[in-house]
Amino acid sequence: MQTWIRFRRPDGDIAHGRVDEKDADRVVEYDGPGYTEPRLTGAIHSYASLDLLAPCEPGKIVALWNNFHALAQKLEKPVPTHPLFLIKPATSLAGPGDAVQRPRAYGGKIVYEGELGIVIGRKCRNVSVDEAASYIHGFTIVNDVTAAELINADPNFPQWTRAKGYDTFGCVGPAIVTGFDWRKASVVTRLDGVERQNYRLDDMIFSPEEQVSRISEDLTLMPGDVIAVGTSLGVGSMKDGAVVEVSIGGIGALVNHVRG
Amino acid sequence: MQTWIRFRRPDGDIAHGRVDEKDADRVVEYDGPGYTEPRLTGAIHSYASLDLLAPCEPGKIVALWNNFHALAQKLEKPVPTHPLFLIKPATSLAGPGDAVQRPRAYGGKIVYEGELGIVIGRKCRNVSVDEAASYIHGFTIVNDVTAAELINADPNFPQWTRAKGYDTFGCVGPAIVTGFDWRKASVVTRLDGVERQNYRLDDMIFSPEEQVSRISEDLTLMPGDVIAVGTSLGVGSMKDGAVVEVSIGGIGALVNHVRG
Repeated sequence: MQTWIRFRRPDGDIAHGRVDEKDADRVVEYDGPGYTEPRLTGAIHSYASLDLLAPCEPGKIVALWNNFHALAQKLEKPVPTHPLFLIKPATSLAGPGDAVQRPRAYGGKIVYEGELGIVIGRKCRNVSVDEAASYIHGFTIVNDVTAAELINADPNFPQWTRAKGYDTFGCVGPAIVTGFDWRKASVVTRLDGVERQNYRLDDMIFSPEEQVSRISEDLTLMPGDVIAVGTSLGVGSMKDGAVVEVSIGGIGALVNHVRG
Repeated sequence: MQTWIRFRRPDGDIAHGRVDEKDADRVVEYDGPGYTEPRLTGAIHSYASLDLLAPCEPGKIVALWNNFHALAQKLEKPVPTHPLFLIKPATSLAGPGDAVQRPRAYGGKIVYEGELGIVIGRKCRNVSVDEAASYIHGFTIVNDVTAAELINADPNFPQWTRAKGYDTFGCVGPAIVTGFDWRKASVVTRLDGVERQNYRLDDMIFSPEEQVSRISEDLTLMPGDVIAVGTSLGVGSMKDGAVVEVSIGGIGALVNHVRG
């Protein structure tokens, strides 16, 4: 297991780093993200001093709907036969600590969706389930923020892309962890300190490997792309000023707040 | 009016060029796309000899649904109050002459949708309708290819993104024309030489400036991004091997074929 981060250095430049496995405050700087065979720059940083950024720069975030049995059951929806997804654009990306900015023209409910994120390590097209693991660089945390009242605002066209595609609505971080065993982990979301989601990842309908395989039949996945694997029970509204923390044991905690 | 193209040079490198207004076969090479204040490289090419590529490299293609009065009327859908859109990812891009590749796991209908494309010239966020024109670099042609039978294959989640997001389903080209007067132009689509679409662009519901303004309230538009403004009457199926040509007088003709 390796823990990779991306951060702004004291001199303002953006850099990548790997957290020392024996000293969680020691970050060894590299000249690129972990999936690019990066080289050491020689710089060492204190984790506590760093201004963390989203740990990768996805060209797209593929966001799944209806991928947990418990939520499908609650919504009385059948288990899908293929991953159901939309795309959050690169411009929706936000990092740890960033504000989720309420859109100027939208006064409705903004909801959190705590999720596991798959980070693609290699260009990936039409790969089998067995091959898929070798295309996954690691795992991160996503808050798939959604302007919930927009989805069905037009009765003729569900606006999934618009509702989830706003700038800052794709919160990703704080780190990418390689070799992470998602089967034993849970997603816990706290809103202003109060637990609102706590679900096991082994309730997932399509496993990460199945997602990568099936989605790679539809579109080429690129290094740094993120698949947000979908959420489960407990999605709820965030008021302006609210602080939301999504945590997964073994990856960390992703904290963001809503700016009205 | 300037006509900008992107192409593969005889030495294999990718370059940009501007077509000479007085000699349509003379292409003056630049070191970047027209919206980046590029410099002349000194090279001159014969247009006829060039291997054309999509004229820009969009980070995203924002594709509109229900943006022509005639089609809305035929589908008996009300005129929307905000542009309705999905995102075709960068990986869907195809250029002039490229094959539209049938997805391995999809045997259903693949349809053409001939459309005008808006090419963004400058980073664009929350701009007014009056400001919008200055963020538009120019106009191009889009074939918004769609795996039509997928859209409603799952009754609980319309798969617009998947149906339109496949690799090679975002055909763009052959050129970007600046200062193009779309109000006087029509989109003509020919399938294997037979005219199937012929509609006036002044039947558009949201004008290009309104689209840029309204969509920029939702997400940041980046230089090179394309907005596919939506199609009108005459959408139809393309069999494997079919050749489809979408033309707009003043921009050119975008020709692609379907590979089974």
